[in-house]
Amino acid sequence: MTGTLTIAGLGPGDEALITPEVSAALAAATDIVGYAPYVARVRPRDGLTLHPSDNRVELQRAAEALRLASEGRHVVVVSSGDPGVFAMASAVFEALEASPHWRDLPIRVLPGVTAMLAAAASAGAPLGHDFCAINLSDNLKPWPVIEKRLRLAAEADFAIAMYNPRSTSRPDGFGRALEILREAGCDERIVVFARAVSTPEQRIETVRLDEASPEMADMRTLVIVGNSATRRVGRWVYAPRHAR
Amino acid sequence: MTGTLTIAGLGPGDEALITPEVSAALAAATDIVGYAPYVARVRPRDGLTLHPSDNRVELQRAAEALRLASEGRHVVVVSSGDPGVFAMASAVFEALEASPHWRDLPIRVLPGVTAMLAAAASAGAPLGHDFCAINLSDNLKPWPVIEKRLRLAAEADFAIAMYNPRSTSRPDGFGRALEILREAGCDERIVVFARAVSTPEQRIETVRLDEASPEMADMRTLVIVGNSATRRVGRWVYAPRHAR
Repeated sequence: MTGTLTIAGLGPGDEALITPEVSAALAAATDIVGYAPYVARVRPRDGLTLHPSDNRVELQRAAEALRLASEGRHVVVVSSGDPGVFAMASAVFEALEASPHWRDLPIRVLPGVTAMLAAAASAGAPLGHDFCAINLSDNLKPWPVIEKRLRLAAEADFAIAMYNPRSTSRPDGFGRALEILREAGCDERIVVFARAVSTPEQRIETVRLDEASPEMADMRTLVIVGNSATRRVGRWVYAPRHAR
Repeated sequence: MTGTLTIAGLGPGDEALITPEVSAALAAATDIVGYAPYVARVRPRDGLTLHPSDNRVELQRAAEALRLASEGRHVVVVSSGDPGVFAMASAVFEALEASPHWRDLPIRVLPGVTAMLAAAASAGAPLGHDFCAINLSDNLKPWPVIEKRLRLAAEADFAIAMYNPRSTSRPDGFGRALEILREAGCDERIVVFARAVSTPEQRIETVRLDEASPEMADMRTLVIVGNSATRRVGRWVYAPRHAR
């Protein structure tokens, strides 16, 4: 029997944001592998084995998924949002590169609604013009790289989607990121704090950058800093399509 | 009767990539407004009026949608991909800003799978590390702005997703974009050309930047330029999670 490995995105939280493609893959799976809170989003059923794991063990988790697939299982690795954006897909390909004997396994990556798209939709259209996405976690890259990217993103006048802005183990980076953007002249830019988007705990807050404080973000928050032209209309925030 | 306006993303092409949230909105609609090829993706039924329109009339189309909603209709404005990424959501908010009497209409934006996520999934995980998205069309912004952003994106070592790289009316910009990236020292970066992703005409091509030529892209192509660490493993391309 030939196993398969599918890397799927569950979207930001609401079941109505899971694509039918991903739902079909979950229905056909024998094994679900992923970070425990995401595995918990998959309904248990007979014939389905759940393999929840801790945070920060992405490579071991990826290798386990490859091994299960090599034994003939139909494995779905789940991420929230899109699996290709700061999530499990890169870890699986890293594990695959380290294990040439698994190279011929049938692998599929199924896209999903990543957090910044759901956050943007809740706020209006702050990503309607050129933008960038930066993971503010310095677990996997040196902090100076993040600082440099923030400066260049401000200079390019990108809207900036910030993933993983702040956690209990990284309480200070986000405040520093706000300072860098202030130094870059972004005081008047509009900032959207989108917490737990598409869940019952959703909260959208919109302020000017010089009114933003680090405590407004936590691990469940996606932050979008508008570009210099980003505007409000009523309760909405949007990036005009034109640039000068 | 109170009308409603919903701005929805149909995903890149495959019906299995349309979220249930969007499908439910289409099922409840009385009117579908959008660029003709996208409206054609909605199944006609009794009680549903289709309003297809030409390319490049986004503001008129947005105003028409607002007017229909103000008359009590349940209007869905459709975009391909995600409506907030180089699509109709910004145009609707622009039209709303110009027409204060419509400010109280109930509006919702429903996210979707934008082209770069589906393209990335088809190729592996080239957006697994920090990245940016640039619309290469200079219909709405001066070309020098695009050049500046490409240079800064290369300097920031972002992966770069290029939307609308090339059309019959804009045959030359994409070649110039490739030149700029060569000047910025990106010759060895991996480039993914993802055409018509998730449709029967899908074609994924992966080359080094110094092997890329403008003719490899057209209006149905999404181009992803990897960052300096982006690698191949077998037929896959991925951005490692780590950066130095």
